[in-house]
Amino acid sequence: MRFGVLGTGVVGRTLGSKLVGLGHEVTMGSRTAGNASAVTWAASAGDGAHAGTMADAAAFGEIVVNATSGGGSLEALGAGAASLPGKVVVDVANALDGASGFPPNLLVANTDSLGEQIQRAFPEARVVKTLNTVNADVMVDPGLIPGGHAVFVSGNDASAKATVADLLRSFGWSEADIVDLGDITTARGPEMYLGLWVRLFGHMGTTHFNIRLVRGA
Amino acid sequence: MRFGVLGTGVVGRTLGSKLVGLGHEVTMGSRTAGNASAVTWAASAGDGAHAGTMADAAAFGEIVVNATSGGGSLEALGAGAASLPGKVVVDVANALDGASGFPPNLLVANTDSLGEQIQRAFPEARVVKTLNTVNADVMVDPGLIPGGHAVFVSGNDASAKATVADLLRSFGWSEADIVDLGDITTARGPEMYLGLWVRLFGHMGTTHFNIRLVRGA
Repeated sequence: MRFGVLGTGVVGRTLGSKLVGLGHEVTMGSRTAGNASAVTWAASAGDGAHAGTMADAAAFGEIVVNATSGGGSLEALGAGAASLPGKVVVDVANALDGASGFPPNLLVANTDSLGEQIQRAFPEARVVKTLNTVNADVMVDPGLIPGGHAVFVSGNDASAKATVADLLRSFGWSEADIVDLGDITTARGPEMYLGLWVRLFGHMGTTHFNIRLVRGA
Repeated sequence: MRFGVLGTGVVGRTLGSKLVGLGHEVTMGSRTAGNASAVTWAASAGDGAHAGTMADAAAFGEIVVNATSGGGSLEALGAGAASLPGKVVVDVANALDGASGFPPNLLVANTDSLGEQIQRAFPEARVVKTLNTVNADVMVDPGLIPGGHAVFVSGNDASAKATVADLLRSFGWSEADIVDLGDITTARGPEMYLGLWVRLFGHMGTTHFNIRLVRGA
């Protein structure tokens, strides 16, 4: 399958490499053609790895992955807006406020979410929020953490969520750990969880951590 | 030990009854003397259970527990403000916006927290945020959920946090599951987690659920 991965940071490169490794073709999109990080990635990630602009990547992908920083996501997706209608947009971004130091605040929270902003801005795209609650390494290799642990899925389109669940299983997520929270407004939950994640990071001493949902009778 | 429990709702009654059961004396505080819920609770919860005003409860307790609804917490604690200097204030409240329907939004989030608001309003109190991430039944009986699962502690005063950790252990929380996140600003993390909790509630099909922290190598 063909993927457009928007964003050349560690999340975009990690997801892009995993997708290429699974036999998919990937165009990594950056704000400017010839972005060094994207070109270097494309040259080293193997057959099927390409670099281009955000518009190139959005046009190339049957599925478009938003792996940009949350504050730049609407602009990045906007550059490829003409290609988005009907496509699954997998939003893995967090709207961290880079200006607020560590731990960062969120640019949007509580009464809205980045996932909802993207769905509103591109109403014909089929937006699915997922994977934003774990480190990039864990996104594509959940087995780094022994036992089951949760990944969340939010979106308005059931078939888009089924496509994303297939993708998550191909990354190694087990069926039982893929939690469909509901429509795209439920993205507020996993996005607000980042407020806890950034404070757990120090306690856990590694970015390779996650949460397991446990229940009583 | 003597506790003042502010709030006559299910959280206040559940915590109050557990404390009485553990042999403590408890005055449950309400906005008006003679509150039916508090009086009924005091009459049925056993020796050591008393009812009074917020000011009565704050004066009575060596430890004061804020189990009011978050939107009313500053006013409730304010009624007993003269008694708070030097005391441990255990804040278990969530600032849910009752006007926003279900799932509720928070009245404060992201760049501030209820825990911080309380600490700022009563600077001589030793505020510790804890237990707000689980249902009242689970607060006082973590064994309702098999295996380990996390409870968070945030506060500026190390000895106050040690006192609260003792209290949590007396409720049945194991040492390994009591996570000290840091100072009171870290209360933003567990408070924002409520945005996920309210969306997990439907998925889990019970209020008797929590999260276990899991890590890789």
